[in-house]
Amino acid sequence: MSTAWTARYALRTKSITSSQIRELLKFTQKPGMISFGGGLPAPDVFPVERFEQACQKVLAEHAALALQYGETEGYAPLRELIASNMARYGIKAKVENVLITSGSQQALDLIGKLFINAGDRVLVEAPTYLGALQAFNVYGAEYVPVPIDDNGLRTDLLEKPLRSGPKFMYVLPNFQNPAGTTLPEKRRVELVLLAERYGIPIIEDDPYGQLRYEGEHLTPLVVLDRKNVARDNGYSIGNVIYLSTFSKTLAPGLRLGWIVAPPEIIAKLTQLKQGADLHTSTFTQFVAYEVARDGFLDKHVKLIRQIYRERRDVMLAALEEFFPAEVTWTHPQGGLFLWVTLPEGLDMQAVFKSALEQNVAFVPGDSFYAPAAHSGCNNGDHGNAHREGSRHMRLNFSNATPERIREGIQRLAAAVKSQLAATNMRSESSLGV
Amino acid sequence: MSTAWTARYALRTKSITSSQIRELLKFTQKPGMISFGGGLPAPDVFPVERFEQACQKVLAEHAALALQYGETEGYAPLRELIASNMARYGIKAKVENVLITSGSQQALDLIGKLFINAGDRVLVEAPTYLGALQAFNVYGAEYVPVPIDDNGLRTDLLEKPLRSGPKFMYVLPNFQNPAGTTLPEKRRVELVLLAERYGIPIIEDDPYGQLRYEGEHLTPLVVLDRKNVARDNGYSIGNVIYLSTFSKTLAPGLRLGWIVAPPEIIAKLTQLKQGADLHTSTFTQFVAYEVARDGFLDKHVKLIRQIYRERRDVMLAALEEFFPAEVTWTHPQGGLFLWVTLPEGLDMQAVFKSALEQNVAFVPGDSFYAPAAHSGCNNGDHGNAHREGSRHMRLNFSNATPERIREGIQRLAAAVKSQLAATNMRSESSLGV
Repeated sequence: MSTAWTARYALRTKSITSSQIRELLKFTQKPGMISFGGGLPAPDVFPVERFEQACQKVLAEHAALALQYGETEGYAPLRELIASNMARYGIKAKVENVLITSGSQQALDLIGKLFINAGDRVLVEAPTYLGALQAFNVYGAEYVPVPIDDNGLRTDLLEKPLRSGPKFMYVLPNFQNPAGTTLPEKRRVELVLLAERYGIPIIEDDPYGQLRYEGEHLTPLVVLDRKNVARDNGYSIGNVIYLSTFSKTLAPGLRLGWIVAPPEIIAKLTQLKQGADLHTSTFTQFVAYEVARDGFLDKHVKLIRQIYRERRDVMLAALEEFFPAEVTWTHPQGGLFLWVTLPEGLDMQAVFKSALEQNVAFVPGDSFYAPAAHSGCNNGDHGNAHREGSRHMRLNFSNATPERIREGIQRLAAAVKSQLAATNMRSESSLGV
Repeated sequence: MSTAWTARYALRTKSITSSQIRELLKFTQKPGMISFGGGLPAPDVFPVERFEQACQKVLAEHAALALQYGETEGYAPLRELIASNMARYGIKAKVENVLITSGSQQALDLIGKLFINAGDRVLVEAPTYLGALQAFNVYGAEYVPVPIDDNGLRTDLLEKPLRSGPKFMYVLPNFQNPAGTTLPEKRRVELVLLAERYGIPIIEDDPYGQLRYEGEHLTPLVVLDRKNVARDNGYSIGNVIYLSTFSKTLAPGLRLGWIVAPPEIIAKLTQLKQGADLHTSTFTQFVAYEVARDGFLDKHVKLIRQIYRERRDVMLAALEEFFPAEVTWTHPQGGLFLWVTLPEGLDMQAVFKSALEQNVAFVPGDSFYAPAAHSGCNNGDHGNAHREGSRHMRLNFSNATPERIREGIQRLAAAVKSQLAATNMRSESSLGV
């Protein structure tokens, strides 16, 4: 029904499409459903007792500040804690380099607001994080997708896309969402040098960096950037803006993320944030600080690593055990996701429906591919993106218990096998004709 | 210093200016300062004990959900509570008409995102809420300001501005920010009929509606809208979108506001909110629900009314006692602010500086005037807006204790008197020449 309002939508609403993941969440609430769909942490690892103590302390000692309006930049002790935690990974940020955001998602929205004019290009991995595309779409971004392989972004394919003049690159170097891949040190160095050579800055999104289950921690781009350009007069001249979050280490329900950037960028983002929500909840910031402080966060992250490593291993073993030989998958060194590649010719919509009938859910891969910017022929590109993604499934291994992971993969294997059989029958019968 | 980033700002950063109120917050932290500057609730009314119980209950009984990702629309029991509370004011919203936002400020940002293209006009009161201008500016809004008087928006001056085709009107009918004025029933009816006649919808911003200290509650525009247009098939055809918040009744540190709109608008806003911050903190929503439920919010609002009424009365009495006869002010029936008008010819910047020297702060009126949209001559208009506002001060009476309100007004009177004397001396000496 048309109202005075609906006739008045802004042009940017053209780009609003409902997220497939979002729609999926409805299925996951069906009783008996095993969902590998969302990116949800395990509720069993939430440090509830520590939260109880933190809430008590905050309300007993700081209620007048913790319930009041606060500074847009965020609660200073929390910003300090973040800065000092990051220092251990070589990220030498000061408090004035840190802006608290309402989850990492708000960081992406503010970055879109600050940098993207309609028609601007953003270089993204193919596939990439769907939420980033949703945030940037609103500002009229077009995309230059660059393929990934088992080692993340194909830096050997970057020069031509960089010459097309994207406004910035958006990259997830650690345990990528959706593919679970990690960019090796050599590619990181190449990426940072290319960024410097072409003058194209980088958004480094690192929500999972601390959740590494094997191998050595790799240097963040934001650190390499400063080393490689051999400039040592502080953070203010960096090419890389770094994003992270407490959603995967404490609790996503807090909605607490952060941006690390040069002070002049932080100042602009702060002004945009003021117009967007004044500031992030002071209460959740005070509580998160009390939870995280005195080394608790580190101990807790160790526990999460242990639990998620087991779940990843259970999923990998179940895939090995139950999935047909034609199917392959990534071996993530950390994070929450792995990426399954099905043989060509399978109808992914049919696999998806069949899986839901078996009470198991995942996210079909095509959601994660941005359509490539081209003059005029966006439909065709979208078709390409769709085709590229249509062989993949993203599977989350953090949320379900090991028992349910095994059971879910078994169900999913049944769905895949039934569709493989149907496809083979179709192709045999068409050969027969 | 220019970096790869700063050369890449989007066009919309042109409109980013730092808020005067924000800068003011720095002064208010000076020891001994009495601030009438912000719009801060009294910390003494935060229901801390109830918050303690609520946190305990939420963490003991609902931790797995309250710390997890949640639905973008908001926590269903909280949306139900809001809908049923509003029903008592005649607003017949269902759960699907309510979207939880990260404070009312996010509601303004989402509305700007959904409706405003660069160059679109928005009809606003002159003066109006600064945060709305900040939210809309980012999307390239231009303004059609319409003057207010002691009874709020001058509906008799609306027809010509409405004919200029604004995208929507943004109006604060109750205890307006900054002026403290309230729109009488007759003007409300006129406003809603004009909106219907010209097909220009209304954003009704009502953060203070429940904080009435005298007189009868007046019908919200969103209710009159449905009555007057004599359509009774539900909320879905309304001309009015209604906004409110828990910031003034529970605690602003929660960052919890809401939007009431037809379901098709809520669906669009929900998609935009998903890209902006996924959802508002589930934890604060669960806590707010536990605090507000079982009639607590109503009892608590009664307490707030009592305390703020006393503070308003103390400020009005002190103004009467200490301020010179040439100065006038509004008599707000509720809310947090009153609006002082100084004699012409005073230098407001000098009054402001003098006040800060006396350790008392306020917000100079010119911050609250949107520059009028005109082809070409924006500078001149901005000058007009500035001149209009330059006789006014916004004073907040909710935050300081009665003793400090009295002391602060005495200090402010001294600052005003000293500037009046200086102005008179200057005009006498210029007469003498």
